[in-house]
Amino acid sequence: MTIDKEAPIGVFDSGVGGLTVAREIMRNLPSEKIVYFGDTARVPYGSKSRETIIRYSRQIIRFLLEQHVKAIVVACNTASAFALETVKHEFPVPVIGVIDAGAQVAAAETKNKRVGVIGTEGTIGSGIHETVLHRLDPEIRVLGKACPLFVPLVEEGWLHDPLTTEVAARYLRELKDQDIDTLILGCTHYPLLRSTIGQVMGEHVRLVNPAYETALELKALLTDSGMLSGGAAQEEFPYRFFVSDLADKFKSFANSILPYDVEMTQKIDIEKY
Amino acid sequence: MTIDKEAPIGVFDSGVGGLTVAREIMRNLPSEKIVYFGDTARVPYGSKSRETIIRYSRQIIRFLLEQHVKAIVVACNTASAFALETVKHEFPVPVIGVIDAGAQVAAAETKNKRVGVIGTEGTIGSGIHETVLHRLDPEIRVLGKACPLFVPLVEEGWLHDPLTTEVAARYLRELKDQDIDTLILGCTHYPLLRSTIGQVMGEHVRLVNPAYETALELKALLTDSGMLSGGAAQEEFPYRFFVSDLADKFKSFANSILPYDVEMTQKIDIEKY
Repeated sequence: MTIDKEAPIGVFDSGVGGLTVAREIMRNLPSEKIVYFGDTARVPYGSKSRETIIRYSRQIIRFLLEQHVKAIVVACNTASAFALETVKHEFPVPVIGVIDAGAQVAAAETKNKRVGVIGTEGTIGSGIHETVLHRLDPEIRVLGKACPLFVPLVEEGWLHDPLTTEVAARYLRELKDQDIDTLILGCTHYPLLRSTIGQVMGEHVRLVNPAYETALELKALLTDSGMLSGGAAQEEFPYRFFVSDLADKFKSFANSILPYDVEMTQKIDIEKY
Repeated sequence: MTIDKEAPIGVFDSGVGGLTVAREIMRNLPSEKIVYFGDTARVPYGSKSRETIIRYSRQIIRFLLEQHVKAIVVACNTASAFALETVKHEFPVPVIGVIDAGAQVAAAETKNKRVGVIGTEGTIGSGIHETVLHRLDPEIRVLGKACPLFVPLVEEGWLHDPLTTEVAARYLRELKDQDIDTLILGCTHYPLLRSTIGQVMGEHVRLVNPAYETALELKALLTDSGMLSGGAAQEEFPYRFFVSDLADKFKSFANSILPYDVEMTQKIDIEKY
């Protein structure tokens, strides 16, 4: 396969959360085009088995390759945890996930080697961050906490709200008590609660946003392999969005977090891939 | 098919919520045995298409028939809305849902013909309660409100909690402003928030619990057709629970709402049916 530097980046998630990763790619790699796929028909991935997630990921990657992407970002913690290792060598383009980049920054930044991770029940239950962090530094103590109300709070748009602060204070109390100095926002929705989480944890705790770190990892990857877009021929619609069901909710969420209006969202039958 | 009066009742839901319906059957029909199926691998149903929900419902009904049930309760609002009409005549046992019984009571009880309905985004978006209520009385004004945070609040166990009261106050404000006198709890999790919802709405608003009304409908159906259990040979384990994935979370939720410990939960491969 010859590399087309002007080809888009493929980004996928189980639903809308991965848009925070797409947003960081837009901010940090403004010349790159993006094809985003949200698997809104089969969300959430967190309660599904490893085999199912691998099958879904392969289908989506096949769809993205049909869109001629030059690299793929798995912007979903569950798919990164369950499928990335298996699928990343099966396809002719680089595939990266959202867990490694965040874990690397957390391992490098922690002073007291006490790192907190917050995420969905599925992600925290999988222990994936602990596995990756221990590979980087076996001495790091990893403290996980599932925060199931954060996703619906974000989807309600109650981002800067005393109620959300109260929920965050309850969830984060035990991580504060355990004296962590670094906290990984291990769910793609959570960067939208960054200021609330930061306020609750206090200034001495470093918040790691894997969406941002993953965009930087992608930038390094594209730079090192000579695949960075020249940015010469920026198209009128550099960002395209695909979903597997009910495009309306996707669009309203996308419009609330992206710096422009998402007008066109196309529904595709992902089971065909 | 000959009727075995001592056969169990089949009850199914997309997950754990339908346990509130099973609980009402246990309370109101204590001689009946129950086979419960929670489709925890494919939850939630709310975001899936009508065709998919019909296919899922047929699979589950085939599984329940293999357990020799004498009647089936669709303890899921989405499946009741999307699949019940289609599937109820396809099988040799009676199949009832959770929407009709609640709507009938609401239509009978409202004085000012202003009925509120709360539920998930899927249920409220479907307009099913409005359709059923208008069939009963075209003059009833139906006011729907999706309350997406209620399910995760219930699943956190924050049932009697100032935070939950605050969320409820926000969601229910517009229904109060619209002067409803009857409110249907249109999601199987919501009866667990009954006291909080009642406190917010005030004593003059009648709360309709479809789980309870459905148990009464089932009782009438069994009585009228001579299928009521004699209750002579009550087994040691009259209630059996099956799920399609991750039995642990199911068990802890079941144990928190049922009046005894659910020890045995069996995982089955529902895609085979």
